[in-house]
Amino acid sequence: MVMGDTSKQSEAVRRHWTVARLALVQPDGDHPDNESWGDLTAEPREVDYLEITAGGLPAMWAVPRNSAADRVLLCMHGGGFLGGSIYSHRKLFGHLAKAVGARALIFDYSLAPVHTHPTQVDEATTVYRWLLEHGISADHIVFTGDSAGGGLSITTQLRARDRGLPLPAAAMPFSPWVDMEVIGESYTTNRDRDPYFYQESVRQFAGLFLGENGDPREPFANPLYADLSGLGPIYIQVGADETLLDDAHRLAEHARTAGVDVRLDVFPGMLHTFQMAAGRAPEADDAIRRMAEWARPRLGLATSTGRR
Amino acid sequence: MVMGDTSKQSEAVRRHWTVARLALVQPDGDHPDNESWGDLTAEPREVDYLEITAGGLPAMWAVPRNSAADRVLLCMHGGGFLGGSIYSHRKLFGHLAKAVGARALIFDYSLAPVHTHPTQVDEATTVYRWLLEHGISADHIVFTGDSAGGGLSITTQLRARDRGLPLPAAAMPFSPWVDMEVIGESYTTNRDRDPYFYQESVRQFAGLFLGENGDPREPFANPLYADLSGLGPIYIQVGADETLLDDAHRLAEHARTAGVDVRLDVFPGMLHTFQMAAGRAPEADDAIRRMAEWARPRLGLATSTGRR
Repeated sequence: MVMGDTSKQSEAVRRHWTVARLALVQPDGDHPDNESWGDLTAEPREVDYLEITAGGLPAMWAVPRNSAADRVLLCMHGGGFLGGSIYSHRKLFGHLAKAVGARALIFDYSLAPVHTHPTQVDEATTVYRWLLEHGISADHIVFTGDSAGGGLSITTQLRARDRGLPLPAAAMPFSPWVDMEVIGESYTTNRDRDPYFYQESVRQFAGLFLGENGDPREPFANPLYADLSGLGPIYIQVGADETLLDDAHRLAEHARTAGVDVRLDVFPGMLHTFQMAAGRAPEADDAIRRMAEWARPRLGLATSTGRR
Repeated sequence: MVMGDTSKQSEAVRRHWTVARLALVQPDGDHPDNESWGDLTAEPREVDYLEITAGGLPAMWAVPRNSAADRVLLCMHGGGFLGGSIYSHRKLFGHLAKAVGARALIFDYSLAPVHTHPTQVDEATTVYRWLLEHGISADHIVFTGDSAGGGLSITTQLRARDRGLPLPAAAMPFSPWVDMEVIGESYTTNRDRDPYFYQESVRQFAGLFLGENGDPREPFANPLYADLSGLGPIYIQVGADETLLDDAHRLAEHARTAGVDVRLDVFPGMLHTFQMAAGRAPEADDAIRRMAEWARPRLGLATSTGRR
């Protein structure tokens, strides 16, 4: 396991996944609860948090001081469709919203295995519709999300389009999980580097998400089999050391082939959702800064953030 | 080290202080930052957080859903006057406010060693005055605080009285630090049980708080030497295993002698500010519930909280 030039602070991400692995193989052991994922993240500060109900779902506004009230990041949290919440991701999306200078809307969708696909993409679409109905213009909205939420940031656009809704300005999936067949080569090539996302584990997660008769190539579950033509620009971030690296590469390639404007940044030495160390690790802060600089002109905001 | 019937969740408090001890003796080592104290606490949920400036100081409203807008807990965070913040204590006071059904106002005061006594008690008094000026009636305010903040919840009343302000309805210090001479017998009797608050360490903290020529018996720094007659009711909580146990006993006795209505609850097997494990440890939740039940009638709220 080579650390290379990885910062000491980002090693906390590795510790998190290593401990999570132990909890996975010893489910009755003493392990942190789901919320502790968010302990990786420093408080963004100068961000307010307001819980609301959005389209019937529990949701939370993260409102940075002096942010544009009419520009919104619609934030889809990760957790393999099995975990994560508005609480685990409050600070992460707070950092991103503060850097962009917009509000973030985070929401809780129903989790697997109790609720299987397409519940999650349907609920995300409902929240997006709620946002439009509450006066936010589609071209002032950017979808973003990590891991399973990164996949949702694409599939929710497809669902929205099918339902006659306008598309958002752009999408920023990071460490996206889109390959429900779980066949990326990086499961093999990065197996020794990624302490948590072993192929057999992710296959289990996919099975729980899709349900008993679920199809891993269904386009609203797996956008690698969807027609992505006509989508707005997409900016993907991924860690070079994660087994889901190929999810990012394949999504980028598939979108480009469909004519979508795609940027993909691969971060050397980084693991899955390393952005969780925002406010602590320089790599995470760099990633947040890059997303903010990319998003601001697409939201019609001045290019310089002046906030970080 | 006897755990007795201590819950597994409360052992996280012991781990916190044990790790903090290592950081104290190896200040250049790899240790969690100041915010990580608050990682002990679960999200209270259904509480909004709004940052404001109160009397010139950084502050945060914690607003539980359906709470009484005109009833306020003025919350003074702990951290030995050297640390702690609105962020480290956000969730702890969020739990308490939710249980009480009132809003919490948390604030950052200037820290030692840069800022010494009486800066902290003066700033707390300024925030209290701000609250009164913003239309909250004194008899609808309860002071509360942990550790150093527990001491402030008493000394700020003395300062306020001196400045002609009305007294709040009541005070709820928990694990209060009031003995700036650092002479309590429990420093000896609990030395083997308390992994962090060794007498020599607390003496250092007191020295940094008081400054070079500070007097450890000055009444606004050490309420054991103050005239407490006329103060409203006080409810003190303390862990039986902490070296600051005598701070609580001596404060209770001193206040009772002055004719103050005092309740003191000692929690078996518990350490300093064990309430930080709120939402996770049954002992912490029990303590929060007891404070809420005690505070509600004193704030003119119905005795049953119906919230927890």
